[in-house]
Amino acid sequence: MAQTATTDKASGATRLDRRKARTRQALIDAAAELIAQGRGERASIQEITEAADIGFGSFYNHFESKDELFRTASEEVLERWGRMIDRACAGIEDAATVFATSFRISGRLGWTHPDLARFITGAGLELLDIPRGLAPRALRDIKLGQAAGRFTFPHAGIALSTSAGALLGLLRVRQQHPEQIDETAVDETAEAMLRMFGVPAREARRIAARKLPDIEDW
Amino acid sequence: MAQTATTDKASGATRLDRRKARTRQALIDAAAELIAQGRGERASIQEITEAADIGFGSFYNHFESKDELFRTASEEVLERWGRMIDRACAGIEDAATVFATSFRISGRLGWTHPDLARFITGAGLELLDIPRGLAPRALRDIKLGQAAGRFTFPHAGIALSTSAGALLGLLRVRQQHPEQIDETAVDETAEAMLRMFGVPAREARRIAARKLPDIEDW
Repeated sequence: MAQTATTDKASGATRLDRRKARTRQALIDAAAELIAQGRGERASIQEITEAADIGFGSFYNHFESKDELFRTASEEVLERWGRMIDRACAGIEDAATVFATSFRISGRLGWTHPDLARFITGAGLELLDIPRGLAPRALRDIKLGQAAGRFTFPHAGIALSTSAGALLGLLRVRQQHPEQIDETAVDETAEAMLRMFGVPAREARRIAARKLPDIEDW
Repeated sequence: MAQTATTDKASGATRLDRRKARTRQALIDAAAELIAQGRGERASIQEITEAADIGFGSFYNHFESKDELFRTASEEVLERWGRMIDRACAGIEDAATVFATSFRISGRLGWTHPDLARFITGAGLELLDIPRGLAPRALRDIKLGQAAGRFTFPHAGIALSTSAGALLGLLRVRQQHPEQIDETAVDETAEAMLRMFGVPAREARRIAARKLPDIEDW
């Protein structure tokens, strides 16, 4: 908070600007919370403004539609999610294990956070153009794996797009045909991605079967 | 043509209906031809109606916009392209080689048919929902590879989505950073996909280095 105030002062923001920004953020936080609880799509604007503790009428001073708020909040949630994965992987040294762990946690979103999963499948490959959340972290991990000589597949951008296709496939099948898929399928896909990147088959299997680190409560 | 007439008669189509259908198809064929020649996006409606040998004014009796025609024609081109790949692969027995060959030919679309490549990247993963063209063929080939025991990765739907992510990645990088990519990258990606599906690394390399069959002139 203190930091925000300093930044605002430096940019010459007025008290009104600051209040507007706080109200906007309260709406985003409330929507993000509903998304995290799996109630994002069903929540009404009334419910969101109540959760944000602001008047119903001021919603449209900040967002044109529930969709616009939902999109902004989803990006925030995606970024928060990315940071949580980062923290969960902080103790892991090996780049291939970091990638596989992140992928396995993200592939479970269809079970753990269906609303966020729906946002991801809704965005599709345009996810790759969002400079926050999962895509920039996956690209970073792929490049670390290449630099460490763990991944021999030389094209990071294509590896990223392929991983996105795999993750989106998992989340889509989970949404459309939940009976066709379980968490083992997520781990088998992580294992297959490692093989694709050039990790020997036996080692890929071992890495994708490691115990997952704990994720903080949301 | 005789077959079309019979079908039309059976469904009670009038001579007017038939003429309308022919005009519509002439527009689609002209647009498809322009797309195939890499001039789809730059072509004006004037140019399209001239190529179809119909009056400029009747365009809007059949399509609401150039975009709508372009979308319809692109699907037709995609299907035509799929059939050409089928014919090119007709002599190949091994399912893994069929998949890799189709993938390597499709991955070259950024060089050989940039307009079609743009349609594919524009559609993104929604391509998976188009029941014509590349996606249904890729799914068929993946299932054939599984049935033949060549692919051990058991989830066909996820394999399909992953392949789509890989292909879209190739086409996107080719469009956005052409200097980062060449045809070798396409073959390396096909090789990596085979590894992902469970083909041993050495064999994947051999299969992805095979001479490509000739493709008919467009």
